[in-house]
Amino acid sequence: MSGTIGVIGLGGMGGGIAGRLLETGHDVSVFNRTASAAAPFVAKRATLAATPGAAAAGGIVITMVANDAALEQMASGEGGFLAGLPQGGVHMSMSTISVALAKSLAERHAARGSHFVAAPVFGRPEAAGSGKLWIMVSGAAEAKARVRPVLEALSQGIEDLGESPEAAPTGKIAGNFMIAAATEAMGEAFALLAKSGVDTRAWHAMLSRSIFACPIYANYGRFILDRAFSPPGFKLSLGAKDIGLALAAGQEKQVPMPFASVLRDRFTASMAQGRADLDWTSIAVNALADAGLAETHG
Amino acid sequence: MSGTIGVIGLGGMGGGIAGRLLETGHDVSVFNRTASAAAPFVAKRATLAATPGAAAAGGIVITMVANDAALEQMASGEGGFLAGLPQGGVHMSMSTISVALAKSLAERHAARGSHFVAAPVFGRPEAAGSGKLWIMVSGAAEAKARVRPVLEALSQGIEDLGESPEAAPTGKIAGNFMIAAATEAMGEAFALLAKSGVDTRAWHAMLSRSIFACPIYANYGRFILDRAFSPPGFKLSLGAKDIGLALAAGQEKQVPMPFASVLRDRFTASMAQGRADLDWTSIAVNALADAGLAETHG
Amino acid sequence: MSGTIGVIGLGGMGGGIAGRLLETGHDVSVFNRTASAAAPFVAKRATLAATPGAAAAGGIVITMVANDAALEQMASGEGGFLAGLPQGGVHMSMSTISVALAKSLAERHAARGSHFVAAPVFGRPEAAGSGKLWIMVSGAAEAKARVRPVLEALSQGIEDLGESPEAAPTGKIAGNFMIAAATEAMGEAFALLAKSGVDTRAWHAMLSRSIFACPIYANYGRFILDRAFSPPGFKLSLGAKDIGLALAAGQEKQVPMPFASVLRDRFTASMAQGRADLDWTSIAVNALADAGLAETHG
Amino acid sequence: MSGTIGVIGLGGMGGGIAGRLLETGHDVSVFNRTASAAAPFVAKRATLAATPGAAAAGGIVITMVANDAALEQMASGEGGFLAGLPQGGVHMSMSTISVALAKSLAERHAARGSHFVAAPVFGRPEAAGSGKLWIMVSGAAEAKARVRPVLEALSQGIEDLGESPEAAPTGKIAGNFMIAAATEAMGEAFALLAKSGVDTRAWHAMLSRSIFACPIYANYGRFILDRAFSPPGFKLSLGAKDIGLALAAGQEKQVPMPFASVLRDRFTASMAQGRADLDWTSIAVNALADAGLAETHG
Repeated sequence: MSGTIGVIGLGGMGGGIAGRLLETGHDVSVFNRTASAAAPFVAKRATLAATPGAAAAGGIVITMVANDAALEQMASGEGGFLAGLPQGGVHMSMSTISVALAKSLAERHAARGSHFVAAPVFGRPEAAGSGKLWIMVSGAAEAKARVRPVLEALSQGIEDLGESPEAAPTGKIAGNFMIAAATEAMGEAFALLAKSGVDTRAWHAMLSRSIFACPIYANYGRFILDRAFSPPGFKLSLGAKDIGLALAAGQEKQVPMPFASVLRDRFTASMAQGRADLDWTSIAVNALADAGLAETHG
Repeated sequence: MSGTIGVIGLGGMGGGIAGRLLETGHDVSVFNRTASAAAPFVAKRATLAATPGAAAAGGIVITMVANDAALEQMASGEGGFLAGLPQGGVHMSMSTISVALAKSLAERHAARGSHFVAAPVFGRPEAAGSGKLWIMVSGAAEAKARVRPVLEALSQGIEDLGESPEAAPTGKIAGNFMIAAATEAMGEAFALLAKSGVDTRAWHAMLSRSIFACPIYANYGRFILDRAFSPPGFKLSLGAKDIGLALAAGQEKQVPMPFASVLRDRFTASMAQGRADLDWTSIAVNALADAGLAETHG
Repeated sequence: MSGTIGVIGLGGMGGGIAGRLLETGHDVSVFNRTASAAAPFVAKRATLAATPGAAAAGGIVITMVANDAALEQMASGEGGFLAGLPQGGVHMSMSTISVALAKSLAERHAARGSHFVAAPVFGRPEAAGSGKLWIMVSGAAEAKARVRPVLEALSQGIEDLGESPEAAPTGKIAGNFMIAAATEAMGEAFALLAKSGVDTRAWHAMLSRSIFACPIYANYGRFILDRAFSPPGFKLSLGAKDIGLALAAGQEKQVPMPFASVLRDRFTASMAQGRADLDWTSIAVNALADAGLAETHG
Repeated sequence: MSGTIGVIGLGGMGGGIAGRLLETGHDVSVFNRTASAAAPFVAKRATLAATPGAAAAGGIVITMVANDAALEQMASGEGGFLAGLPQGGVHMSMSTISVALAKSLAERHAARGSHFVAAPVFGRPEAAGSGKLWIMVSGAAEAKARVRPVLEALSQGIEDLGESPEAAPTGKIAGNFMIAAATEAMGEAFALLAKSGVDTRAWHAMLSRSIFACPIYANYGRFILDRAFSPPGFKLSLGAKDIGLALAAGQEKQVPMPFASVLRDRFTASMAQGRADLDWTSIAVNALADAGLAETHG
C-alpha cells in the first residue's frame, strides 16, 4: 500500500478513479470544489479533506479537473496542494492539461522538494471505475515508481513516455486530436453516403469489424449515427479546449496542423450553434448540416 | 461451381484474386494487357484469354484494373467484355471506380441483358491471395446471388449495400477517404510529438493496442514511422485518384468535405514533389516537412 | 471594319457585347439557343443567324456561353461554327472555359485552317455594353491582330498573355479564384467584426478607400453587407464551376491550392443550402452562418 | 497644440511617428527600451524621457511597440506610464494589440482617472513619417477629441469606430487578416500560372490596374514576384502574431475562420522553415514550394 491517496476532482472521471481505489483497498482522501459530490465516497470509507492541501497530506495526490485554471486554483489557491504535499510527495496529474502548465508545475514542485508526474488517461468514466483505463505516464523515474501500484489499479495498460513532465501531456493532446479527426472523417463520410443513398449503418458496421475494428470508430461512429449526443460522455466544450491545446503546442513547436485547424473551425462553429454541452462527437453535425442534411442539434 | 470465371487485370490485387480462385478449385480464364503477367497463372491451370471478351465467355467476369479509363477500354474497346459476356452473365467490378462509371456500366449491361455487380475490396494483395479480403457488394439481387460463392472464396467478410450499382463504389471511395484521413492525422500527430521530444514509437504502440487497435492505425502508422514507402503497397498516385473520386462524388451530391480537400492538397503536393510512385502513406511526409522535420522522400 | 462579326450567346454579357459592337458601327450576326433573346438586337440592325455556323460565316465569331458543354455544342453540334467558319477565320472565346477545352478547340481549328483566340473578360454586363471590359488575350499573333479592333471596341484595357491558347483561360480562372478568395476573406472578417460589436460598414468604408481601394473590395463588400444577392450579377453556380476549373487546372499542373479547396467547400455548401441562383458573393453567408449569425438566404 | 506628446517605442513605425510630430511643430518626449534609438530624435528637438512614465507626463502618450508583452511592460513595469500619466491624460495605443489587452488597459486607465484610446494604423514607416497613415480609432469621445490633432498630423484618413476600446484593435486585426489572405491568394495563383507557363508579371500587372487596383495587390504582389522579402517591411513573425490574435478573437467570439486557419498553418510552416525574419509576404513561398516550384528562402 502507498499510504493515503488524495483525489482532487470528483466528476465522472475523478469519481471513477476514487471509487476504484477504494475498491482495490487503498485509503483515499477526497476533495471537490462542490463538497456534496464527496458524500458517496465518504460513505464508502474515504476521508473528506477540507482543502486540496489536506487531500495531499498522505504524500500522493491525484488531480482530475476540468482545465488549466481549475488545476492552478487547486495547486496554488488558498489551501492549495503545492503547499500541502509533504517533502518527497508526488502530484499525479491525470486530466488533460496544457504543456505549459505541466512544465510550470514540474518546476514549482521541484523547487519545493516534491514531484510532478503526468499520467493522463484514455477511457470513459466506466473504464476508470473498473480499472480499464489506458494511461500515458511521464516524469522522474523514482516518482513514477512510487505511483506505479496506483496506476496499475486503475488501468489495463500503461505506457511510459520518459522523464519529461511535458511528454505525457503532449501525448494525450495528440491522442485527443486523433479522436476528433476520426470523428470529423466519419461525419464527412456519412454525409457523402447519406446523400448518395447508401446505407450508412451497414457501411459503418463493416468498417468497424474490418480495417477500423477499434473502439473509436465502432463507438463514436454509432454515437453519430444515433445522434446520441446527450448526455455527453465528454463535452464538446472540453474537446474544443483540447484542440486549442494541440494547436497551441503546435504553434510553440512550429508544427502546422491543417486537420487540427479544420477541427478548430468545426468546434468553434459547433459552440456558436449551441452544442457546447453535447457530446464532442456532435462536431460531426457540421459536415451533415453543410451538406444540407441535418437539422441542427442545439 | 460457377463455370469458368474470367479475371481481367493481373496486377498485385488481380493476381491475388486469380490465384485464390485457382487454389479454391475454380476454373479461371485470365486476361492482362501485358500478356507476360498471365504466364504464372497459366502455369497453374488458368486459361489464357486472347481478349477481355474471351475472358468473359464463361458468364462471370471480374475486373481489377488501375482506373476508369482502363476499365472502359476493357469493356468497350476492341474485343471488349461487354460484347463478350453471354446473356445473363455477370460483370463483377472489384477495383475502385467512379460512381459515374458504375452507373454507366450498369445501364450498358442492362441494355444487353447482362448484369453489373460492384464488389470493391479492402485489403492488400496478400489478403486477396489468402481469401482474407473485406468486400462491399451492390447490384441486382439475382446477380449478387450468382457471384456469392466467388465472393466467399475471396473474403473473410461481405457487406451487402443493396441494389444500386453505385452504392458499393461510393462505399469504397468513402472508405479510402477514411484511410487517407487517418494517415494525415497520424502525420500531424507524429510531427507534433517529434518536435516535442516525445517517443513517437511508444506513443503509437500504445494507441495501437487501445483506442485505435485496428489494422489501419497499427500498420499504416508503422509504415510512416519506418518511412517504409517503397515498394508501395498502394501507390500514392492511385490514392490521389481516389480522393479525387470522393471529391467528385461530393460535388455531384453537394457534400462539402474539408478533410478531403486538405487531403487533395496533400496528395497534389506529394506528386509535385516526386512521390507519385511511393506508398500512399507517404502523404504524411508533408506534415513532417512543413514542420521543418523531414528530408523529402522523392 | 472587320466584316460581319458573329456573336453566339446573348445572355447579359453576350448581349452587352453585341450591343456595344452595334453601337460602334460593326455589322453583327447573332445566334442564341433561345431565339427570342435575339429580337432586341435584330431591332438594332443585327442579322439573325439560323445556326452557330451561319453566325460564323463572316470570318470572326465570338462565343459567350455558360459552360464547356454549351460551347462544345455550339462548336460541333448540328450547324456548329467549327464547320461554318471560313478558312482563315477566327473564333474568339470570351467566356470562362476550361484549359482542356481551350486546347482542344485550338487543335480542331488548326486542323481546319481556322484560328482560336482566347479572350476572357473581367467586368459585368454594364461594362460590356459600354466598352469598359478588361480583357486577357492569347493565341496566334496574326489572329490576335485581326480581332484587335473588336477587343478595343469592347474594353478599357487589354493584356496579351502570349501565343498559347491556354494562357488566357488559365489567367481568367486564376482571376476568378482571386475574386472568390477576397469574398471569403470579407465574409470571415465581417463575421468577426459583427460578433465583436464593431461597425462593419465603417470598417469596410475605410479599407475600401485605403489599402483595398479597388472595385472588388468596394463593390463586393457592399453586396455582402447589403445581402444584395438577388438578382445575381454572376450566379453562384457559375462561380462554383470556375473554382472547379481552378482546382482541375491545379491538379493537372500539380499545384496544391488550399484557399481554392476551402472555396470549393464553401460553394458546395452554398449550393446544398439552396443558393445556386443567387449572386456568387453569397458564399460569404457560410462564414456568417457558421458563426451563428446569419439567417440562411435560400 | 496639445502640450508635450510622449512617444514610446522608436522602431520604424514609432520613429516615423515621432519624426512627423516633430516636423509638424509638436513638442515630443521619447522613450525606447534601447536608448540609442532615441538619439536622432533628441538631435531634432525631442526630450529624452528616462522612463515610460516620464514620457507620459505631458498628458498624451503614444505607444508603438512589438507586442502585448512589451506594452504591458511599458504600462505597468517599473516607471511605467500608467502611473506616470496625469489625471485626465490619454494613452493612445497605435500598435496592433490583442482585444483582451485593450480591454484590460481601458479598465486600468479608468480606475486611475486617465483614458485609453485605441488608434491602430495601416501603412509602412514611410507613411508614418510623411503623415500618410490610415488610422482606425475607438475610445471615449472626449479622449478622442483631445488626440484628434495628433491623429490628423499623422494620417491621410481617420475612421472612428465608436466608444468601445476593443473596436479599433479588432478592426486592425481583421484588416491584417485581410492582407495576409490576399497574399496567400496571390501565392496560389502565381503557382498555378507559373506551372501553366503563363507570364505571371503580365497577369499581375493587368489585375493591379483593373479589378484589384489597390496598394495591397499592386505592392505585395510585386514583392512576391521579385522575392523581395529582405529587408522586411513587416516581419513574418509579427504577421504570425497577428493571425494568432485574429484566431484568438474568433475563438472568444465563436467565429470560425477557415482562411485564417490556413494562414496560421502557412505562417507556422514559414517559421519552421526559417523565414521568421523575412517580410510577411514570404508566406507565399509555401504555395510555390508545395507546387515543387520554389527554392526555399531561409
